[in-house]
Amino acid sequence: MAQKPSIPKGTRDFSPAEVNRRNYIFDTIKKHFQVFGFQPIETPSFENSETLMGKYGDEGDRLIFKILESGEYLEKAKAKAVFIDKRGLTYLNDLLRGIFQRIRKDLREECSENFTGDEKFTNMKKVSKYLKNNIWSILNQSPEIAYLSHLEELIGSYFRYSSIQIAIKIVNRSSFFENDTAFQNFRLVEQREIQEDLLDRLEEHFLLNATTPQITSLISEKALRYDLTVPFARYVVMHQNEIDFPFKRYQIQPVWRADRPQKGRFREFYQCDADVVGANSLLQEVELIQLYDAVFTDLKLDGVHIKLNNRKVLAGIAEIIGAKQLLVDFTVALDKLDKIGEEGVKKEMLEKGISEKSIAKAAPLFSLSGDTGEQLSILKALLKDSEQGLEGIEELEFIIDMVEQLGLQSAQLSLDFTLARGLNYYTGTIFEVSPPEGVKMGSIGGGGRYDDLTGIFGLKDVSGVGISFGLDRIYLVLEELNLFPKTLEQFIQVLCLNFGEKEALASLKLISTLRNSGIKADLYPTGAKIQKQFKYANNRNVPYVILLGDKELVENAFVVKNMANGEQKTFSIDSIEDFIASL
Amino acid sequence: MAQKPSIPKGTRDFSPAEVNRRNYIFDTIKKHFQVFGFQPIETPSFENSETLMGKYGDEGDRLIFKILESGEYLEKAKAKAVFIDKRGLTYLNDLLRGIFQRIRKDLREECSENFTGDEKFTNMKKVSKYLKNNIWSILNQSPEIAYLSHLEELIGSYFRYSSIQIAIKIVNRSSFFENDTAFQNFRLVEQREIQEDLLDRLEEHFLLNATTPQITSLISEKALRYDLTVPFARYVVMHQNEIDFPFKRYQIQPVWRADRPQKGRFREFYQCDADVVGANSLLQEVELIQLYDAVFTDLKLDGVHIKLNNRKVLAGIAEIIGAKQLLVDFTVALDKLDKIGEEGVKKEMLEKGISEKSIAKAAPLFSLSGDTGEQLSILKALLKDSEQGLEGIEELEFIIDMVEQLGLQSAQLSLDFTLARGLNYYTGTIFEVSPPEGVKMGSIGGGGRYDDLTGIFGLKDVSGVGISFGLDRIYLVLEELNLFPKTLEQFIQVLCLNFGEKEALASLKLISTLRNSGIKADLYPTGAKIQKQFKYANNRNVPYVILLGDKELVENAFVVKNMANGEQKTFSIDSIEDFIASL
Repeated sequence: MAQKPSIPKGTRDFSPAEVNRRNYIFDTIKKHFQVFGFQPIETPSFENSETLMGKYGDEGDRLIFKILESGEYLEKAKAKAVFIDKRGLTYLNDLLRGIFQRIRKDLREECSENFTGDEKFTNMKKVSKYLKNNIWSILNQSPEIAYLSHLEELIGSYFRYSSIQIAIKIVNRSSFFENDTAFQNFRLVEQREIQEDLLDRLEEHFLLNATTPQITSLISEKALRYDLTVPFARYVVMHQNEIDFPFKRYQIQPVWRADRPQKGRFREFYQCDADVVGANSLLQEVELIQLYDAVFTDLKLDGVHIKLNNRKVLAGIAEIIGAKQLLVDFTVALDKLDKIGEEGVKKEMLEKGISEKSIAKAAPLFSLSGDTGEQLSILKALLKDSEQGLEGIEELEFIIDMVEQLGLQSAQLSLDFTLARGLNYYTGTIFEVSPPEGVKMGSIGGGGRYDDLTGIFGLKDVSGVGISFGLDRIYLVLEELNLFPKTLEQFIQVLCLNFGEKEALASLKLISTLRNSGIKADLYPTGAKIQKQFKYANNRNVPYVILLGDKELVENAFVVKNMANGEQKTFSIDSIEDFIASL
Repeated sequence: MAQKPSIPKGTRDFSPAEVNRRNYIFDTIKKHFQVFGFQPIETPSFENSETLMGKYGDEGDRLIFKILESGEYLEKAKAKAVFIDKRGLTYLNDLLRGIFQRIRKDLREECSENFTGDEKFTNMKKVSKYLKNNIWSILNQSPEIAYLSHLEELIGSYFRYSSIQIAIKIVNRSSFFENDTAFQNFRLVEQREIQEDLLDRLEEHFLLNATTPQITSLISEKALRYDLTVPFARYVVMHQNEIDFPFKRYQIQPVWRADRPQKGRFREFYQCDADVVGANSLLQEVELIQLYDAVFTDLKLDGVHIKLNNRKVLAGIAEIIGAKQLLVDFTVALDKLDKIGEEGVKKEMLEKGISEKSIAKAAPLFSLSGDTGEQLSILKALLKDSEQGLEGIEELEFIIDMVEQLGLQSAQLSLDFTLARGLNYYTGTIFEVSPPEGVKMGSIGGGGRYDDLTGIFGLKDVSGVGISFGLDRIYLVLEELNLFPKTLEQFIQVLCLNFGEKEALASLKLISTLRNSGIKADLYPTGAKIQKQFKYANNRNVPYVILLGDKELVENAFVVKNMANGEQKTFSIDSIEDFIASL
């Protein structure tokens, strides 16, 4: 049965036209990355899970795509599950010993050697009941059991389930109560049986009752990369001896996130990152702003807003409003100044628990105006008592001053103290790029400085600063503003029509010459009706169609039809360069 | 605790130098793909599992990387497992009914109302034994059970395990045997209990006893692509209404295989494919040979061997040796002609079960010599009675004739009737490219024609022909022959040394001008010792170092040091174009 094909939600096929447009953006970004001295690296699509897990918070961990181990992973997982639980085995033995001691001691009095049939039956039930109760009380007495709660459950349920069988065995071997040797033997045999049985059940139990993350760790060791930053940090640490620091790297590769797919949010998408590691100088920030400017200018996307903030300034503001944990609420509210006005913002801040006094203190932030210099002065006065805040101001001043002196081609640089992007991640500068005014679209780029990029992998005190370009959004903006070059729609420049075998051979010779000159040329593959061939040329936006029929073959010539205006011109095959020159 | 970072086996990090060299190959291939009129597409890294599974044989299925469902996939899997087994539920009810009927009928005689204690105990054991035996015999009588073999096992083990408890219940409710109503009630109550219990166990059982593929299908719905051909076929079918056929597409993307990693074999690697679909003309084959020639010529890899065969010729040979299933053995043996000589080959063929008569018939193949034309004549005579064989010869003749007339730049075209690559896949032409003589390396490219590419996805009779470039091997060959351009090692053309803040600003202005002219220029990010900065320039193969110190700042000049010969030259900042022109 033929399948009706589809692709997983959140993923995309890219048609030739789309690939061309995407590559236009990629190539532009790449060109400037290189011109700015960044070097490309590539990392594997999947990393060891432990490289990625725990780096993006709980929510991030959930959104990481895990790859199933290949081969007979279930067998391996069961073996591993047993191994995991084997740490409980010694403890289990101790428990069993205790249980049997109690059975012996307490039952001795109640059971005697000679039973009648009725007594046997009654005793059996008594023993069964006794086991249930006592095993629980023994288990409950043990403090270590807490750390092995699933083992506890397991042993409990095992005995609950098996107690009748044990009872029958005890009743049948009533000599068990007679003397210590018999008891000892019974204990050894039973203990081994029970232990083996329990081991099987440990395995089953683990597989059936383990949490999803526990099971995942048993059946998956690899995961698709979630971003390019963590793999980059891993790369830097692994290759630290081959790298000449400062290391300016760029990386353009897909990442995968198990996010709920929605408009503009995909499960597979590209990230385009440029980072510098091992350089503390703020000149890096200056360069990265120039880089944004260069790329967007080249893409003809004039007037993007490069917004700038600094984590230290945010820390200073937090000091002023007197509560670090209210900083996010504060900036979220402040960000609405344009929409809901000063009163609205203050109201929201009060609702969020920021005191009137704090709000009054931070009041100058509500009336930040003028150019970046004036804004910085206001903030400087406000943060005069915050050492960290003033340090942030100083950094911003340096960057802005340098950028002003160097000049930008088409982008606008502005301060945005509400910019709290990656608050827990960045430690200095924070960047964000918005599309030109009038385009309804979130940020098309962002980045910042982080003091300790590689510490998680054991390489301390390596500062990094980087920016990222949001390919999918840039694509949508260029599309909306009709900024993709028309040439991207042209896949072939010249199509030779196919008039039959002999003519096709002559055409292929012609085409070879054109292709050797780097011209995208093609032959219609079959001798289909000429109308159909022309239609194909139209559909594919071919600007020139070559006609080399039997007449032309005799004359050693070819006719070129300009598809835009219908003009036809005849060239001699020997002077094909004239045609090439005319393109 | 800092982790010691590593990457999964079979994957690779690519350093800047490696990325540059790989991109050099990619870009060259891509350029010629485009010049030959191929259009790029891209497909998602992962496909729905059903798109990929069953397309590459059992071994291929095993080597496909499966992606774990995200979120609480275990809960979903358990629910699905129960759902799967619910189809057995009706059947289960019937079975239980049957079992209770038998219990009633057969036990009635054996059990009587009034038991002594001893009798109770004995009966209980009897009932237990009876249940064990009879349930098995009932289960075994049922023909439908075969299709639900795991259900059978489950029910069996359930009753084996539970029979004692059931026995106790039966013994305790001995009135059960008294009259039909009591039996009925018992049956209903017990049946419901057992049924619920069984449902839980069905779930557990399935999870614990299902095969790895069964479990995989419950916890994974997506898989990483294994090649580019199946996704391409899927793409063509899904987008058939947007595509103008014939469709020439290229695709350069990574694929993933859970192969045992070994030298030169990776779990993540790129494929570079060009295919034409919807064109039967053999001109496609001619073009693909030209394409191979163009790419390898451009890579300066002169003298590659493009080997040609045809599936129909192989079919003809199979006819002659009288056994289709011996064709592979035949070609494998024939392929060793150079190494083990005619006698050796014949001996191997006899061992493989090819008759002396067949070998005698095929004898002309042992002495194929001369140019391709002579070889084709010999084969033509040999295959004179095989219609299919002659058709293959005709196709080869056409292709070779066309290619001879068009000429190749540096590649050599030859026939290789032992070429059986993808025997079960290709239906016409088969290609393979070997590196130039003297390089020990398997094929660096291959491809062929397949009559029905898209049939698996419901679009019939779409012929395809394509070729592939083996990036990793081409890389190794170029490296071995030292064919990578030296310019690939140059990441920046100009490095400005950093003499402090003021000088850095002037340098950055200079650098901006250079970068705007497309020159890869960089500033050393900190005012480190000049020696250290020079060392960095050396390590990074920078050809020109610019010195703009306080002296130069005053003079509005900069000094350029040629790192190759140590020469220094001073330029005025105002005539930076002179320096640019000198590069």
